[in-house]
Amino acid sequence: MQLLASNKVFGGLHQRYSHQAESTQCEMTFAVYLPPQATAEQPVPLLYWLSGLTCSDENFMQKAGAFKVAAELGMAIVAPDTSPRGEGVADDPEGAYDLGLGAGFYINATQLPWAKHYQMYRYISEELPALLEQHFPVTQQRAIAGHSMGGHGALSIAFKNPERFSSVSAFSPICQPTTCPWGQKAFTAYLGSVQQAWQEHDSSLLIKRLTPEQHLPLLIDQGSDDSFLAEQLKSETLVDAAKQLNYAINFRMQQGYDHSYFFIASFIEDHLRFHYKYF
Amino acid sequence: MQLLASNKVFGGLHQRYSHQAESTQCEMTFAVYLPPQATAEQPVPLLYWLSGLTCSDENFMQKAGAFKVAAELGMAIVAPDTSPRGEGVADDPEGAYDLGLGAGFYINATQLPWAKHYQMYRYISEELPALLEQHFPVTQQRAIAGHSMGGHGALSIAFKNPERFSSVSAFSPICQPTTCPWGQKAFTAYLGSVQQAWQEHDSSLLIKRLTPEQHLPLLIDQGSDDSFLAEQLKSETLVDAAKQLNYAINFRMQQGYDHSYFFIASFIEDHLRFHYKYF
Repeated sequence: MQLLASNKVFGGLHQRYSHQAESTQCEMTFAVYLPPQATAEQPVPLLYWLSGLTCSDENFMQKAGAFKVAAELGMAIVAPDTSPRGEGVADDPEGAYDLGLGAGFYINATQLPWAKHYQMYRYISEELPALLEQHFPVTQQRAIAGHSMGGHGALSIAFKNPERFSSVSAFSPICQPTTCPWGQKAFTAYLGSVQQAWQEHDSSLLIKRLTPEQHLPLLIDQGSDDSFLAEQLKSETLVDAAKQLNYAINFRMQQGYDHSYFFIASFIEDHLRFHYKYF
Repeated sequence: MQLLASNKVFGGLHQRYSHQAESTQCEMTFAVYLPPQATAEQPVPLLYWLSGLTCSDENFMQKAGAFKVAAELGMAIVAPDTSPRGEGVADDPEGAYDLGLGAGFYINATQLPWAKHYQMYRYISEELPALLEQHFPVTQQRAIAGHSMGGHGALSIAFKNPERFSSVSAFSPICQPTTCPWGQKAFTAYLGSVQQAWQEHDSSLLIKRLTPEQHLPLLIDQGSDDSFLAEQLKSETLVDAAKQLNYAINFRMQQGYDHSYFFIASFIEDHLRFHYKYF
């Protein structure tokens, strides 16, 4: 691991690291916030934050305003990158923002030219936690959250691994990628046209496989003025599925808010306190 | 005025506007935060935030994490751009980050090719306040703050116009531009080599002209690990001058903090509460 940057913030440390990842076969960058309480003798719980399309490890750390409360509670936060990167990593030939670099969709690609590096599901759910729990003062108490494509990532990874997390939350998540343009484009490219493979990463379907004992505490915030809501995010699909399952999720439609980090900053405190309660 | 963007945040509104400015003879962009309390019937006090080198109206608004407390207190914040911009606006031929675009230094240029558009002192101290107080729900209660080059701007504008502000604060300000490389380069270009013109914009000199009645409440935060401290910022010059004048400034050396917005975010709440106290 190589330390790229270190900044003191709210008494703790924001740090950026790069490392050679086995799963994605390239150098990956992540950022971590370590609150002042975190020491080798007293490790702290860790929130995984998965960002949306076009983001890197930097957006959440710079824009969410999460550190004050994380420092108060004593919780670490990690923000991984949203795709593999670097020379030799495939990208959309036209540089589309919703495919290739910055658009890994937190799945393991099976199709060429993506399969070699686009193994973000394995990176986020296995390799990165192992690395962090070995090298940083964090416990195995894990929560997961994300925004938009990263909200899809947080929900789908939590639903596939409910034993690994104590709670899950999302802002403006893509709730049914198998039926929205962003998801269909990415899944077709990365997974081919096999519907069964798609269903392995669709939160509105995955939720139905959970037993009542696997129902993690779940908080979702969605802006009512989010221009992607109707076509891409489709939060009603997840809300309806949860209702049928008697899964008591906390879905909040926030009046007048949009898809931006201004929305995330307004409610991130609620998410941190929510996760902290279940550690 | 043209509305470029509007985002709901912490119950208030973040908005970006552009307008044709008389002082700088070009289209200027600024961002404003209006807290939920602000209405035409109940205008609120306004904090001017002046940003540092390379910044636009966006950096503070996206990275400082100031809105929660501004919304709680009921204060508006405006973040102007740091220079004129657009076609025909002179820039450093080599694209230096510390001269030309993004580096207006909050002074009125007298030298070619800068004089036509680089009139940031007049824009910030006269034209923008008049515009804001006419078109937005803000009172004439004004405070001013800034970072680095913008810290220089806040201090020097407040010292030259103590009757216009109720308080002033800065993060990592350039305290003596007449003796540091950033200031000498910019002042030589914009003002020529006339030392008298330089002294009109050097806070460590301007402070000596103030009568005790003109000593505004003044808070400065400086990071001890700021790599620009010794060569460019020279905070001891201002601290020493204040001491000689019995000007009771609150200067805080914050151990381990650097020059970044992570530092600003860590202490912006203190600055907002400080200014609010004196409105």
